[in-house]
Amino acid sequence: MGERLKRYEALAHDIAESIRCGVMRTGEKLPSVREASTRRGISASTVFQAYYLLEAQGLIRARDRSGYYVVHGAAAMPPELDPPAPVDQVDPGSQVVDVSSQVFEVLESIRQRDVVPFGSAFPDPALFPMAKLGQVMASTIRHLDPWQAVDDLSPGNAQLRRQIALRYQVDGIAVTPDDIVITNGALEALNLCLGAVTRPGDAVIVESPTFYAALQSLERLGLRAVEVAAHPREGIDLAALARALSQHRPAACWLMTSFQNPLGSLMPEAKKRELVALLARFEVPLIEDDVYGELYFGTSRPAPAKAFDVDGMVMHCGSFSKSLAPGYRVGWAVPGRYTRAVARHKLSTSLSTSMPAQAAIAAYLERGGYDRHLRALRHALSVRQGQMMAAVGQGFPAGARATRPAGGYFLWVELPVGIDTRVLHRRALADGISIAPGPMFSAQPRFLNCLRLNYGHVWDARAETAFARLGGLIRTM
Amino acid sequence: MGERLKRYEALAHDIAESIRCGVMRTGEKLPSVREASTRRGISASTVFQAYYLLEAQGLIRARDRSGYYVVHGAAAMPPELDPPAPVDQVDPGSQVVDVSSQVFEVLESIRQRDVVPFGSAFPDPALFPMAKLGQVMASTIRHLDPWQAVDDLSPGNAQLRRQIALRYQVDGIAVTPDDIVITNGALEALNLCLGAVTRPGDAVIVESPTFYAALQSLERLGLRAVEVAAHPREGIDLAALARALSQHRPAACWLMTSFQNPLGSLMPEAKKRELVALLARFEVPLIEDDVYGELYFGTSRPAPAKAFDVDGMVMHCGSFSKSLAPGYRVGWAVPGRYTRAVARHKLSTSLSTSMPAQAAIAAYLERGGYDRHLRALRHALSVRQGQMMAAVGQGFPAGARATRPAGGYFLWVELPVGIDTRVLHRRALADGISIAPGPMFSAQPRFLNCLRLNYGHVWDARAETAFARLGGLIRTM
Repeated sequence: MGERLKRYEALAHDIAESIRCGVMRTGEKLPSVREASTRRGISASTVFQAYYLLEAQGLIRARDRSGYYVVHGAAAMPPELDPPAPVDQVDPGSQVVDVSSQVFEVLESIRQRDVVPFGSAFPDPALFPMAKLGQVMASTIRHLDPWQAVDDLSPGNAQLRRQIALRYQVDGIAVTPDDIVITNGALEALNLCLGAVTRPGDAVIVESPTFYAALQSLERLGLRAVEVAAHPREGIDLAALARALSQHRPAACWLMTSFQNPLGSLMPEAKKRELVALLARFEVPLIEDDVYGELYFGTSRPAPAKAFDVDGMVMHCGSFSKSLAPGYRVGWAVPGRYTRAVARHKLSTSLSTSMPAQAAIAAYLERGGYDRHLRALRHALSVRQGQMMAAVGQGFPAGARATRPAGGYFLWVELPVGIDTRVLHRRALADGISIAPGPMFSAQPRFLNCLRLNYGHVWDARAETAFARLGGLIRTM
Repeated sequence: MGERLKRYEALAHDIAESIRCGVMRTGEKLPSVREASTRRGISASTVFQAYYLLEAQGLIRARDRSGYYVVHGAAAMPPELDPPAPVDQVDPGSQVVDVSSQVFEVLESIRQRDVVPFGSAFPDPALFPMAKLGQVMASTIRHLDPWQAVDDLSPGNAQLRRQIALRYQVDGIAVTPDDIVITNGALEALNLCLGAVTRPGDAVIVESPTFYAALQSLERLGLRAVEVAAHPREGIDLAALARALSQHRPAACWLMTSFQNPLGSLMPEAKKRELVALLARFEVPLIEDDVYGELYFGTSRPAPAKAFDVDGMVMHCGSFSKSLAPGYRVGWAVPGRYTRAVARHKLSTSLSTSMPAQAAIAAYLERGGYDRHLRALRHALSVRQGQMMAAVGQGFPAGARATRPAGGYFLWVELPVGIDTRVLHRRALADGISIAPGPMFSAQPRFLNCLRLNYGHVWDARAETAFARLGGLIRTM
């Protein structure tokens, strides 16, 4: 086994070197698996393993049925982030959360249109079919039955729930319209799920680093955060998770299993399966935030953990905000055995989701075109990732390392130790550039030298200049 | 003073009798104040007091500058509800709330379109300019700047906040766009305000009976309810409130000051002013639910308690759901000194309110026509109130008493003691008729023989037949 590992790693290393020194160029096709296998005298499965590794590293990418290609900017990519050091047996403990004022300060800054939005949580709105959606909404709303306002109360518009259920079914996941609760975006879905399974004082497991809104929700509900280290490519460390489960007996686990914010990590399918089984053993519900799942750069949508849920313990949360209709505030939860509780919780906190928005998205999905839009969106994001990755490689100091997400629109960058990204944030903002400093993503004083970059915006001269300026600021620190 | 009181009461009593025995008919104009004053040899102010009392009792109504008229159905009105017995010094204590399953059961029943919706919380959707709103939305959405999704994040669409602030200013209340947080309907506004000023375990004062959603919010947040008796015409008992404030040191007080749900009570202006001063003395914030304020049947909008707020301790919550756009889920809060906390709380729970809905309502308000629509809506509701009031007088057993709200669309009916309205609810539902049984409106086992009726729906043959059937069911009990 050790021998075989070395072989595919050696092949992957050779190809990565060819890409880095420019022997293989952007867009170039890699040898077919059969060809490479014959040429190097190794098995086809070894070649596959090497290609999968290179794909996970963000250097090559599969295109439908035609093989693997070198991605844009691969040559200039910065070194990949190291996995976290093996966690020792000393438990970090659970934390009372107090991140909100820091987070709000950063959020305020990214709302100004004249600031270059590298720190933004939102992708470029120009990537979405806003005009088409508007047309569909216009024709829907004029013929809306006024009684729809009562029909659309939580759990929500039946036509929309049918359309969402269909998408699960296409992905081979058994979800019916009755399993779905429509919400005001995924954020409300996640909060409703969290509220349904916790009481103040409970512990909740999150990734480290984690999406700051999860920390804010914990803070607001008086919950304690147990942060478990995550691998920059493969997500949460299951051994560390198992220890945290025994030690803290948490009420829930809130994770982002595909294209995690901020790491961009994607848990492999086998790991997701193991995660679900592990949590089921401890009878801990999983709140699965899957808002970036549709933004994959590979050949198919990564299965969510929900796909492996046999006990109804996975509460899967999705949204159209990152994939179709930012600002419409339409998301949903598939809360398994907690569906009734979540639907009622919604009814007594916000009653229902805006009727015209629900109807418009249902009509858009029904008429088709969503998948075509998604293909264009994924392509645009993967090109922009390459552009920013190259810029990090060229413009950031030598010690900088970055994740290589296979989807989503976030890069996580680790700068040399000693650089405080909160200081960088303030200096960059003075120059009209936003970043998301690492400490936003933990309830503990961690990730001081890290930052999250959003590559979902157009890469134009303004962005290039701003990025060069950002690199300059880092060098002076 | 006692003598003078008797005079206006005597005049009011004489007029009420003339109406009841048919001497004065529906739509007939009352003598002018000068005429009545000369004829009876009493002062004009005594006549005014009598007319105000008759108006508060729902028997007469002022029309713009032209005097007072007998309202539709006044002759057949049931006797008015007695004020609650003077509260004794024994405090009812604070309650852990557990009403939700009962409330949800009733809510489910009113969602079926074939059920006659006397128990509904929503008015007839046909009373709202849904087609016009749809047109405005259609033309707005097609030209929406995609970046609007970022601009409209909490505190919300600037144009909409400007329009709402203008309406406060017209009413003489100093509110600027910066004082407003747009929310997913008033329900979210109320919940955000409650969350901003309480911690689990705190006591919160509510009216008795109170809007069940307030009880559900308390239940969800682990708060204790202190129920203070309310007068069916003039709202919460201030002496009882003062005692409850000293005794329970509550974290907040959540009241409906105009056209309370379910009583329909309207606190007189002087009482609202006193309420604000009393709460300020105890440093207790007032969460003021004012969603029915625009639905007055008198000559002008009743001032909310917010109008008398000097310390920023009144958190005023409004909505377009009852007055313009049901189902759009657009409401707002003016949280005074808690504005920043509420806006941030919103940002971390549901991020923002649906962008197309915010934009459409802002555009509708800007183009004018809202006040014209409101006049038609108020007229329709006041006519329907008369119709249902007459039906209660004619069809319910002799012991039945009812409130006479001067606005909104709810009647609160007290049946003879011994009739359990939860049983009535089930029997009526079997006949395709919904009602809202009294026990929904308290955390204590109260109001067993009371029910709330919605007169906001069309009064047609189906409603008449259903109402007769309801009367028959009550008689058998």
